[in-house]
Amino acid sequence: MYAEDIAASVAHARMLGKQGIIPEDDAAAIIAGLSKIRTEIEGGTFPWRPELEDIHMNVEARLFDLIGDVAGKLHTGRSRNDQVATDFRLYVMRRASESVAQCRRLQRALLDQAEAHRSTLVPGYTHLQRAQPIVFGHALMAYFEMFGRDAAAFASARESADVCPLGSGALAGTTFAIDRAAVASELGFSRISGNSMDAVSDRDFALDYLFAAAKAMVHLSRLAEDVVIWSSQEFGFVRLSERYSTGSSMMPQKRNPDYAELIRGRSGRVTGALMSLLMTIKGLPMTYNRDLQEDKGQLMDAADTADSALEAAAGMVSEMQVDVARAEDAASDPALVATDIADMLVRDQGIPFREAYARVKAREMDASAESASENADMPDVTARDSVEMRDVYGGTAPGQVSAAVTRGYGELGKARLRGEW
Amino acid sequence: MYAEDIAASVAHARMLGKQGIIPEDDAAAIIAGLSKIRTEIEGGTFPWRPELEDIHMNVEARLFDLIGDVAGKLHTGRSRNDQVATDFRLYVMRRASESVAQCRRLQRALLDQAEAHRSTLVPGYTHLQRAQPIVFGHALMAYFEMFGRDAAAFASARESADVCPLGSGALAGTTFAIDRAAVASELGFSRISGNSMDAVSDRDFALDYLFAAAKAMVHLSRLAEDVVIWSSQEFGFVRLSERYSTGSSMMPQKRNPDYAELIRGRSGRVTGALMSLLMTIKGLPMTYNRDLQEDKGQLMDAADTADSALEAAAGMVSEMQVDVARAEDAASDPALVATDIADMLVRDQGIPFREAYARVKAREMDASAESASENADMPDVTARDSVEMRDVYGGTAPGQVSAAVTRGYGELGKARLRGEW
Amino acid sequence: MYAEDIAASVAHARMLGKQGIIPEDDAAAIIAGLSKIRTEIEGGTFPWRPELEDIHMNVEARLFDLIGDVAGKLHTGRSRNDQVATDFRLYVMRRASESVAQCRRLQRALLDQAEAHRSTLVPGYTHLQRAQPIVFGHALMAYFEMFGRDAAAFASARESADVCPLGSGALAGTTFAIDRAAVASELGFSRISGNSMDAVSDRDFALDYLFAAAKAMVHLSRLAEDVVIWSSQEFGFVRLSERYSTGSSMMPQKRNPDYAELIRGRSGRVTGALMSLLMTIKGLPMTYNRDLQEDKGQLMDAADTADSALEAAAGMVSEMQVDVARAEDAASDPALVATDIADMLVRDQGIPFREAYARVKAREMDASAESASENADMPDVTARDSVEMRDVYGGTAPGQVSAAVTRGYGELGKARLRGEW
Amino acid sequence: MYAEDIAASVAHARMLGKQGIIPEDDAAAIIAGLSKIRTEIEGGTFPWRPELEDIHMNVEARLFDLIGDVAGKLHTGRSRNDQVATDFRLYVMRRASESVAQCRRLQRALLDQAEAHRSTLVPGYTHLQRAQPIVFGHALMAYFEMFGRDAAAFASARESADVCPLGSGALAGTTFAIDRAAVASELGFSRISGNSMDAVSDRDFALDYLFAAAKAMVHLSRLAEDVVIWSSQEFGFVRLSERYSTGSSMMPQKRNPDYAELIRGRSGRVTGALMSLLMTIKGLPMTYNRDLQEDKGQLMDAADTADSALEAAAGMVSEMQVDVARAEDAASDPALVATDIADMLVRDQGIPFREAYARVKAREMDASAESASENADMPDVTARDSVEMRDVYGGTAPGQVSAAVTRGYGELGKARLRGEW
Repeated sequence: MYAEDIAASVAHARMLGKQGIIPEDDAAAIIAGLSKIRTEIEGGTFPWRPELEDIHMNVEARLFDLIGDVAGKLHTGRSRNDQVATDFRLYVMRRASESVAQCRRLQRALLDQAEAHRSTLVPGYTHLQRAQPIVFGHALMAYFEMFGRDAAAFASARESADVCPLGSGALAGTTFAIDRAAVASELGFSRISGNSMDAVSDRDFALDYLFAAAKAMVHLSRLAEDVVIWSSQEFGFVRLSERYSTGSSMMPQKRNPDYAELIRGRSGRVTGALMSLLMTIKGLPMTYNRDLQEDKGQLMDAADTADSALEAAAGMVSEMQVDVARAEDAASDPALVATDIADMLVRDQGIPFREAYARVKAREMDASAESASENADMPDVTARDSVEMRDVYGGTAPGQVSAAVTRGYGELGKARLRGEW
Repeated sequence: MYAEDIAASVAHARMLGKQGIIPEDDAAAIIAGLSKIRTEIEGGTFPWRPELEDIHMNVEARLFDLIGDVAGKLHTGRSRNDQVATDFRLYVMRRASESVAQCRRLQRALLDQAEAHRSTLVPGYTHLQRAQPIVFGHALMAYFEMFGRDAAAFASARESADVCPLGSGALAGTTFAIDRAAVASELGFSRISGNSMDAVSDRDFALDYLFAAAKAMVHLSRLAEDVVIWSSQEFGFVRLSERYSTGSSMMPQKRNPDYAELIRGRSGRVTGALMSLLMTIKGLPMTYNRDLQEDKGQLMDAADTADSALEAAAGMVSEMQVDVARAEDAASDPALVATDIADMLVRDQGIPFREAYARVKAREMDASAESASENADMPDVTARDSVEMRDVYGGTAPGQVSAAVTRGYGELGKARLRGEW
Repeated sequence: MYAEDIAASVAHARMLGKQGIIPEDDAAAIIAGLSKIRTEIEGGTFPWRPELEDIHMNVEARLFDLIGDVAGKLHTGRSRNDQVATDFRLYVMRRASESVAQCRRLQRALLDQAEAHRSTLVPGYTHLQRAQPIVFGHALMAYFEMFGRDAAAFASARESADVCPLGSGALAGTTFAIDRAAVASELGFSRISGNSMDAVSDRDFALDYLFAAAKAMVHLSRLAEDVVIWSSQEFGFVRLSERYSTGSSMMPQKRNPDYAELIRGRSGRVTGALMSLLMTIKGLPMTYNRDLQEDKGQLMDAADTADSALEAAAGMVSEMQVDVARAEDAASDPALVATDIADMLVRDQGIPFREAYARVKAREMDASAESASENADMPDVTARDSVEMRDVYGGTAPGQVSAAVTRGYGELGKARLRGEW
Repeated sequence: MYAEDIAASVAHARMLGKQGIIPEDDAAAIIAGLSKIRTEIEGGTFPWRPELEDIHMNVEARLFDLIGDVAGKLHTGRSRNDQVATDFRLYVMRRASESVAQCRRLQRALLDQAEAHRSTLVPGYTHLQRAQPIVFGHALMAYFEMFGRDAAAFASARESADVCPLGSGALAGTTFAIDRAAVASELGFSRISGNSMDAVSDRDFALDYLFAAAKAMVHLSRLAEDVVIWSSQEFGFVRLSERYSTGSSMMPQKRNPDYAELIRGRSGRVTGALMSLLMTIKGLPMTYNRDLQEDKGQLMDAADTADSALEAAAGMVSEMQVDVARAEDAASDPALVATDIADMLVRDQGIPFREAYARVKAREMDASAESASENADMPDVTARDSVEMRDVYGGTAPGQVSAAVTRGYGELGKARLRGEW
C-alpha cells in the first residue's frame, strides 16, 4: 500500500503549501522527500525497519531521515485516522478495478468457448438429473451472465470506496483551512466525505468489495462443480488440459481437476473473510477503534484469492476440450424430449398438459407392443429439434445462443472502451 | 407471497391468450379464477390445504376446484422453476422498497435530533477514550450517512431483483411463442433475463438483499452500542423513553436499554442468514437444485428483522432525551482541547507539531506552579472554541453541522418525491 | 419450553419450603398451582395471553390468577436471569439427547445397508475421479464413523449444558439461604455453576449444540452430495425410493433427489445459526445483556433442522436400492487396479515404485502389440482381487468391512443400553 | 509442519523395515536421510526449492538427492492422502496443546488479580446498567470459568485429532502387510482410524480446533470490551500499563486500549476461519478432494491469532491497575442496594416481594421529607453489607470468591501436574 500512502501524502503536502498553511518551500521539500522514498521502495533500496509497525510509520521515519524536522509538518491538518482511511480507499479502488478486469477476462474465455460450442448438444440438468437437451454454449453463457454481474458488483465496490476522507482529522475535522476538494481531485477521488466521524470509521467499501468477491467465488464454485462433474469418467463431457489438471502420485490413470477443486474450496475462504469483517465491525462504538485494523489483511487476502481464482478459471475454461461425440450421445437420451412431446400434444392435438404428461410418462414406463400402438400418434422429436424449438429470447436455440454471444462480445467491447480491461 | 404468485399467473395467462397460445376465453376464465382466489385469501376464506407443500400448489389446486381442467393451461409455456423465480423476485423488490422506506424514516429521526442538538457539546471518542469535543448532532449525522448508504444498498438490491425470468422454462426456455416483454411489463419489471439456465438458478438478488440488510444491522449495532454506553450511569448523556427501555423485575432502580440491546443482538441473525445462503449456493451444479428452496425463509426472516430493527431504532432515537448539562460538562474536560492547543502553537507560534505536542503533554502531566509559568504563553481554548474552529466541510463546527442537516432534509425530500417513503 | 420452566419453578419452590425461606404451605400452594398449569398447557386449555412477552411471563401471570399473591414468593432467591438460563439449559439437554438418538438411528440405517453391501463392488473416488475399487458398504461405513462423532459431539453439548445456574440471582448470587444442590439434583443436573456472573451470561452450551449440529449437517451435505451423484443417470449406482424422490411437474422422466438436496441445502442454515450466535455474543460486556435473547430462536430452529435432516437421511438410506450390476460393472474398469499392479511389481518383482508406476502408466497409454509383449509379466488383477488385498484394519476388504459392521452393531448396542436411543 | 512430516516418515520407514516389507538396510538409509534433513532444516541449511509446491515435496526431493532411488521405497504402503492427514493431525495436536497452555496462563493471571481484588467493591452490571455491588475479583473469576472451558475445548480438539490415519492409502487401505498400531504408537497417537475413506477426508478435528479458538476469541472479546469500558474516563475503574496501551500521535492526553481492541477485533477473524472451513467441506463428495487443502492455512492463522490474543490478554490483565477508590465509590451508589433492601423487607418484615419492590422504588423516586418518615423502617444497607450477604456457592461474597480462587489455584496446579502448562 506504499503507493497509495505516498500519493496521498504528496497531495496533502502540495495543498498545504498552496493554501499557505505551511511554507511552499517546506511543501516542496516534503514532496521531494516522498518522491525519493517511492524511488527507493520501487528500486528495492528502501531501508525497511521492521520494528516500526506499518508502512505509514516506515515512510514517516524515512522522511525525517531524509529531510529532517520539516517532515513533521506533513501532519498538519491530518491525522492517522483520515490518512489510513484514505490510503485504504485508494487501495480498494485499485483492487476493485483489477477484479473487474479479471471478471472480463473470464467472460471472454467463456464467450470464446460458447461460440465454439453454440450448437454442441449436451444434456441439461436440474437436480443433477437429465432434464432437457441444451447446447453447451448455452451453459457457458449462464456463467457469462454471472461474471457480468460480478464485474458490476466490483465496479460498485470501487464506487463505494471513491470518497475522500482527508480533512476528517482524528474524528471531528481539522482546524486548518485546508482545501479538501483539491486533495481529492489530485488523488482521483470523485467525492469528499460529508461527516468526519463517519469518514474515519466507515469500512462499508471494504465490506462491499468482500461481498462482491464472495459472490464471485460462489459463482466460481458452481462452475468448478460443473467442471468436476463434467470431467468425471461417468459424465466425460469435458477433458481438462494438462495445465489445469494433475496426475496422481499413486494412481497412474488419474487426471484430477485440482484447479477446479481449489477454486471451489476457496469460496469458503472469501465468505469467511466477509463474515470476519462484519463481525469485527459489529457493536463498535463511534468512532475509530483499533479493531478496524483487521480490515486490511482480510481484504488483501480475499482480493488475491478472488483474482487468482478468476484467472485460473479463465485459463481452465479456455483450454478445456469438449468431447462432442460423447456429449451429443448423452443428449440423445429419448427421455430428454419427453416434455417436448407433451408440449406438442398440447399444442398440436389440443390435449391438456396434465393428460399429455401422463401419456408420455406411461410410454416411458411401458415399452410393450401394446402400448406402442397406442402411442402411434406421438410425435417424433430429436434432441436437435428440441433445442431448435426453444427459440425464445434467453433460450437454448442455437440462434438465440449465437445472438447472446454476439451481445456478449459487444458488452466486452464496451468494457474495453471504458478501460475496464 | 400469494400476491406475487397470483399477479404473475394473471400476467402469464393474459399473454397466453393474446398470443393465441391458449383460447382467449380460457385465459379469461383463468384470470377470473385467480382474481377470486386473491379475494378469498384477502378475505380469509381461502381453503388452505396444509398437505400441499406451498402457496403455489395451494393456488393451483384451488384454481382447478374453481374452473376445472382449463386451469391446467396456465402451465403452458411456464415451469415451476421460472414461476418460483419470478414470484421471489417480485417479493424481494417489494421488501427492498420497504426497507428503503425504513432507512429513510430512521434518517428522518436522526435529522430531527441532530437539528435539535446541532450545538450541544459532548465529548467525541476514539478507542472509547475522550478525544475532542464535538456537537452531539454531528455524531447523529454520522449515522445519517450510514443509513443513507443502506437505503442505496437496498435500492440496488431491488434493482438486482428487477429482471423477469418468465419464459426460461425449467432451464432451457420454452417452445411456445410467448411474449416475454409483455409479461415483464405488466408485472413492473424493467428487464428480462438473458439466459434461461442462469435465470432459474440465480439468487444473487437475494444475496444482495441479505447483504444490504446485514450492513444495515451492523450499522444499527453500532448505534445501539453508542446508545447503551451513552445511557449508562457513568456516561449519562442520554435518557431513553419509557417505551424504549424497561425496568427490572428485581432491581427497582434500573432502566435497561432493551431495545438497543435486541437490535444489536439481532445483527448476528441477519449476518447468519447471509452466510447461510452463500453456503447453500456454494458448489451447486447447474441449474435449479432443490437446495435453493432455502432462500425464501432466510430472506423473509432477515427482512422482518431488519425492518423492525430500523423502525425501533427510529422510535428510540426520536424519543431519547439528551442530558445537555451533563454532556457539556463532560465536553469541558480540558484534556479534550489539547490537540487544539498544540495546533495553535503550530499555527500561531510556528512551533513544529511534535514539539508543540510534547509541550502540551508535559503541561497535562505537571500542574506545578513552576510549569505554570512556563506555560504562560499557551493559548486558552474552550470546548466551544474547539468545535467552532473545526469549520471544514464534514467537520463538527455547528455551522457545518447545520449545513449538513439542511442537505440531509434536502436528500430526504428528494427521496419522498421519488416515492421512496 | 414450558415443561422446563415449570419443572424448574417446582424444584425451586420445594427447596424454598424445605429451607424455611417461605412457609411450607406456600410452597405447596405454588407447586399445586404450577402442576395445574402444566395440566392446562398439556390439555390445551391454558389461557395464553399474547401480550405477555414469553412463556415465563404467561406461567407467572397464570399462577397469580390461580393462587393469588402467594405466587409472588416464587421469586424469592431467584431472578429472571438465572431462571431463564436454567430453563434454556434443561431444554438444550433435552434437544441434545434427541439429536444423539437421531444420529444413532441414521447410523443404524447405514449399518444395515453396509451389511447388505459388504461385498458389492463400486468404484471409489478421489477428486470425483475413479481411483480404486471399493465395496459399497465401506463407503457407507465412512458415514457411520462421521455420525458416530456427531453423536459424541451432541452428547458433549449436553454435558456443557448440564450445569445448574439457579442461585446466581441477577448476577451476584442471592442473599437467601438456598440449597443449590437440592434444586440441581431434583432437576437432573450433575453440577452447579461456580460463578454467578458467568452463570447468567454463559451461552457456550448453546454454541456447543449449534456447532455439533453444524458439523452433522456438513456431514449430511456430503452424504447428500454422494446420493445426488450416485443417483444421476450417468453414475446410476443408486435408485431412491418414491418416498425420498419426487417427479417433475413438467418432465415425466425425472426422479429428483429432493430430500438429498434439501438436506444439503440446509447445511447452510445451521452454520448460519452458529455464526449468528457467535456474532451476537461477541463484544458483550459482563453480565446479562438482552442481546442474549437471540439464543433460543436460533437453537430451536437449528435443532429442528438437524433432527429432521438426520431422520430424513436415515429413511433415504434405508430405502435406497443399489444397482449392483451397474456398480460392479463400473468397478471393473481396468484403470482402477493400476495402483495394485504397480504395488505387485514392487512387492513381487522388487521394482521400485516410481518405475513400476511408470510402467503401468505406459501400458495404460499404449495398447499396441509391441507393448503387450513387454507387459507380459504384468500381473492380472480384478476389482475383487483388489478389494480383497486391502486387508488392513480400516481397509475395504470385505472381511474388514464385515468386522467394522460387527463393531458398529456393538457400539449401537451399547448406546441402546445407555438409553441413548 | 516439517517436524510432523519427518517424524511420520521415520515411523513409517521403521515399520516397513520391521515388517520385512522393505529391507531393513533400506529403512535405515531412509531414516538416516530424514534425520539429516531435519538437521538441515533446523540448522537453516536446507536447500528449499520454491518450485516444489509444499513441504512434503521438498522433503521427498531432498531425500532422493541424499540417498538416491531407495528414497522411493518410503512410498510403499502409504499415499499422499494418508500422509498429509497424519501430518496435519500431529500438527493440530501440538497446536491444541499450546492453546491449552495459553488458556492456563491467562487463567493464572486472572486468578492472581482476583486474589488481589477479592474484596475490592465495584458496581456489577446487567445491560450495562449498574445492578448490584460485586467484588472485582468475582468479575475476574467469571472469566476464569470461561477460559477453563476453553482449555477443555482445546484439549478435546486435541483428542479429536488423536487418531492415526496411516494405512488408509489413497482411500481404500493398503495391500501391504503394515503394522498400523506400531506406527501410531511411535508417533504418540492413542488410536488408529476405523475406516480408510473417512480417514483421508475427515477434517472434523480441524473444525473442532477452530471452534474452540472461535469460542476463546469470543470470550476474549467480552473481556476486552469490559477492559475498554472500565478504562474509559467515565468508568475509570482500571488503568492499563504502558505496555498494553498506546498514546495518540495527535492527542497528547490519550491512552488507548489498543491491545484490548485488537483482541476484540480479531474474534471476527477466527470465526471467519471456522465459517470458511465449514463452507469448504460442505457438499464435498467422498473421499479426498483438493478443496481440503484450504484447511491448513485457516488453522495456522487461527491458532496464531488465538494464541497471541490469549498471551496478550494474560499480560494485559496482569499489569492492569485497579483504581480501588474510584471503583468503591461507584459501588456505593445507594441504588445498587435497592434489591437487597427489598429482599430484607421480604425476609424480615414478611412483606411480599412485589410490594417491597414498589416501596423501594418509590423511595428512589421521591426523596422528600414526607416520604423519608414513611421510609423510616427501611433497613440501612451498605455495598459491603450487600456483597457479604451474597454468601452462596458461586456468589460474590468475599469469602465465596476467596474459596473460588483457592479452588482455581488447585485446578491450575492439577493442570500443571498433567503437564498442560
